[in-house]
Amino acid sequence: MTIRVMGIDPGLTRCGLAVVDVEPNRHSTLVAVGVVGTEAGRSLDQRLLVIAEAVDEWLDLHSPHVLAVERVFSQLNVSTVMGTAQASGVVIAAAARRGIPVALHTPTEVKAAVTGNGQSDKVAVTKMVTKILRLDAPPRPADAADALALAITHAWRRGVGMQGAAAASGAGAATPAQRLWAEAEARARRR
Amino acid sequence: MTIRVMGIDPGLTRCGLAVVDVEPNRHSTLVAVGVVGTEAGRSLDQRLLVIAEAVDEWLDLHSPHVLAVERVFSQLNVSTVMGTAQASGVVIAAAARRGIPVALHTPTEVKAAVTGNGQSDKVAVTKMVTKILRLDAPPRPADAADALALAITHAWRRGVGMQGAAAASGAGAATPAQRLWAEAEARARRR
Repeated sequence: MTIRVMGIDPGLTRCGLAVVDVEPNRHSTLVAVGVVGTEAGRSLDQRLLVIAEAVDEWLDLHSPHVLAVERVFSQLNVSTVMGTAQASGVVIAAAARRGIPVALHTPTEVKAAVTGNGQSDKVAVTKMVTKILRLDAPPRPADAADALALAITHAWRRGVGMQGAAAASGAGAATPAQRLWAEAEARARRR
Repeated sequence: MTIRVMGIDPGLTRCGLAVVDVEPNRHSTLVAVGVVGTEAGRSLDQRLLVIAEAVDEWLDLHSPHVLAVERVFSQLNVSTVMGTAQASGVVIAAAARRGIPVALHTPTEVKAAVTGNGQSDKVAVTKMVTKILRLDAPPRPADAADALALAITHAWRRGVGMQGAAAASGAGAATPAQRLWAEAEARARRR
């Protein structure tokens, strides 16, 4: 069954939103991608409202099976991390209200899943997302690419978890990143 | 005009909720107080959903004029601050969706407003809240008292801001804390 994943890279200034359909063989297709942003000069409640309304609209319009959200760490930039956490709370609650399951993935998990290397930079992630989804041009800004990468990551990790043998053997349609990642997962399992 | 303020002390494990009616002369009356909590073992989305639904219910039931929320700082306990920030995001967005204005107050502002001393401990805050609202017993747990203190703080600060002369001269019904606080404000204005 094709799974529809919505990925969100939360943030007050820019919140990346993406919806991707992923087939059991990992073939992934872009459904929608965008960014919702608010100016730093607006009040916190109005900024969170803009994000809440955008997420509600996207969830209702695209009806994803699952929402993948970047896991927020307090070790990041102190000046922005609180706003990011508040935005992620709004996003997660919006899905929970609709009974849509929420999965959290770390940036390292996302980089590893998409590029095969958990230490990749944003350029490498954007490049692989563009390739995986067969896009004519790289998604901009980076938050949009990150949201797409989150959605792909969740579907691929879930796919392997639920049907490991099939995903591991179905190498026909796999991209280099998919192969790298499958190998990395296989190595991790051997440890 | 009597102002109805809802105060929320956000948190994933315990979220204090309070509604207080405050008259222009600062006379304050308890409308409702409670705590909504979720166990640490539950998933983040389910924990945020419990908070979101409780806040929705309280906002719809009590129709406050304004929501006062504790301002979250990233300097606090790192292991809980992210959950607290996520809960506060959910709470603030719930008010914003209803067009209810949101005010943020720091713990120091709350302590100063209620006890006259920004460095007071929780025992002193609870004691003054009990006295101000003429309660038979102190509100428990501390999160409930903090939510009440937040609501009182917002109304009193707003009252002085909007009608400073009246509040400063109307000493008849003022508690010792109210007088202390009015004096502290007067000192601050003289600087």
